[in-house]
Amino acid sequence: MVADYMPFVSENPHLAFTRPLFCSILGNTILSTVPGISGAGPTPEKTLLTPILDAELITQGSITSMPVKPNTPTGCPTPASITRAMMDLIDIKPLFINAGLAQSPTVPCLDVYGCVGNDPRQRDAVPCVDALYNRGIWIGTYLSKSSDLLVLGECVPGGTTTALCVLRALGYPASVSSSYVNNPISLKEEICQTVMRRVRAAGITKPLDIIRATGDPMMPVAAGIAHAYVGNLVLAGGTQMLAVAALVKALGDQVPMIATTSYVRDDTSANVVELSDQIGVKIFYIDPGFYDLGHLGLARYCIGEVKEGMGAGGAMLLAYLLGYSPEAIRAKIHETVSAYN
Amino acid sequence: MVADYMPFVSENPHLAFTRPLFCSILGNTILSTVPGISGAGPTPEKTLLTPILDAELITQGSITSMPVKPNTPTGCPTPASITRAMMDLIDIKPLFINAGLAQSPTVPCLDVYGCVGNDPRQRDAVPCVDALYNRGIWIGTYLSKSSDLLVLGECVPGGTTTALCVLRALGYPASVSSSYVNNPISLKEEICQTVMRRVRAAGITKPLDIIRATGDPMMPVAAGIAHAYVGNLVLAGGTQMLAVAALVKALGDQVPMIATTSYVRDDTSANVVELSDQIGVKIFYIDPGFYDLGHLGLARYCIGEVKEGMGAGGAMLLAYLLGYSPEAIRAKIHETVSAYN
Repeated sequence: MVADYMPFVSENPHLAFTRPLFCSILGNTILSTVPGISGAGPTPEKTLLTPILDAELITQGSITSMPVKPNTPTGCPTPASITRAMMDLIDIKPLFINAGLAQSPTVPCLDVYGCVGNDPRQRDAVPCVDALYNRGIWIGTYLSKSSDLLVLGECVPGGTTTALCVLRALGYPASVSSSYVNNPISLKEEICQTVMRRVRAAGITKPLDIIRATGDPMMPVAAGIAHAYVGNLVLAGGTQMLAVAALVKALGDQVPMIATTSYVRDDTSANVVELSDQIGVKIFYIDPGFYDLGHLGLARYCIGEVKEGMGAGGAMLLAYLLGYSPEAIRAKIHETVSAYN
Repeated sequence: MVADYMPFVSENPHLAFTRPLFCSILGNTILSTVPGISGAGPTPEKTLLTPILDAELITQGSITSMPVKPNTPTGCPTPASITRAMMDLIDIKPLFINAGLAQSPTVPCLDVYGCVGNDPRQRDAVPCVDALYNRGIWIGTYLSKSSDLLVLGECVPGGTTTALCVLRALGYPASVSSSYVNNPISLKEEICQTVMRRVRAAGITKPLDIIRATGDPMMPVAAGIAHAYVGNLVLAGGTQMLAVAALVKALGDQVPMIATTSYVRDDTSANVVELSDQIGVKIFYIDPGFYDLGHLGLARYCIGEVKEGMGAGGAMLLAYLLGYSPEAIRAKIHETVSAYN
């Protein structure tokens, strides 16, 4: 039973829909290979593979292309296993969008033929930002033909650092979340300050120019989708989706809602609630109550590890909106991650 | 008005559907770079780019990534312009599937991360055939969730030669069509005989092993889709789709229907009707009556140039099934190709 002092969803978004779809945008930024930036992989170099392995897990139910388990380096189940559990529960086939990865995925993806994001301290991070934005628009239009609710997640290791840079460059006093229990704030700040000097020196102020300078390939694709999608759009993620929402707002489009886990809200090193107010984005927080689910790795989400990823919060919200009880959702997650141990 | 002695469609397939979808599978085989094999490009080397340029034309309405016109080297409008005209008429967003291309497409594609097909005279043509077949199954399942009629085209320059090899290896006495007015039969035969010696020497008889040895990347993806798709499936193409139908049959699945142009049926150098009888596949022939449409390049389809490609026949059938009159279809094609001159 879910503890009754904490609801499963902070507020019911009351969305009307008949044809829901779950997508997740995969991308890399070379920043994830800077030692200490990202906990989304066993080594800095291997963080580049995480989106591919996560997509494989969610699509196939297991990772067969490499001898790895769907756990974080510290032994927590990955957010991807939560997303997998939800897709299995609600019988939806998620569609992955490849915005720019270091290696080819092992499952089919809707590919926009982008590139790994460059290090924004040294050069433009996303040189092809205009093409990616336009291809995002194509995807938004295309998906509008066959769905009326789109829950859109992301998997970009190192992406909270690009989100920090983008939010700051857009004028928000952001501090951002992390998959580490101890958020490497000083390292992110150091990168961000170097980037801000470059952005200011170049006089970059237009939204897509900011993404070109210091974003990652996921962002323009997500913003393009938000521009064109005609149904209900839910951005599923934490501070990275806040950066997308800020970008969408700066581009003059209607800001979509966000769904994320309560663990992102409760991250004291980030200012998610304050930022969402400033951007004017409504966030729905999902609290799956991992603390008493009987799984040590999941319980560590509650003390600040992992927190979110691969649209896990949005996937749980989607299951809830489809009528699955918090008990059924929690039981399915427990069953799924227990099978990987 | 369409001449009344020749119907627009050889027979009405009477398909019931509410959510139609048009997809086309893009692929390369290195065989298209053998001089004289393929007319689908200005030089043998540049035939590798044709699927990308065709997809760009259909998606965007024009080719902007390279300074080329959507005409064949001999000045006929490409089949892709016919497909573009139809998508524009019926307001369907086509989805391209990248089965294995030499370069990255310029528009979003559902990518299965295959490779360019190798020269089957020297080595296995499609080493990753099993992965491509399984990813085709994923696509068929995925597309079943949002559509109940799938018209599936292809664009594989050099693909009639791989089709010839596959049909022969599957035991059919095939002769195949060509985009050339003078079908380079002796060259194709020479390649096919070399390949057959290799296939027989290796004792290859299983369907997917035959594709691995001498097919192209489009084929296993199409067969996987046919295996999993639950709605009405129409393979849109000529002899290349006959090879897919033969593969599907050999794999023990229900053989889908085929839609193609009457120009493929009327190709005296191929034996399409005889082959379709042997495979047990029903073919619907679309005759758009290009001879009196007032466009010289289109009229040359009637004397055996180009004939078919990019699912053009299936795209015209789809417009017809959606209730557009032959007159409206012909007028739209004329308007579209005239704008490119």
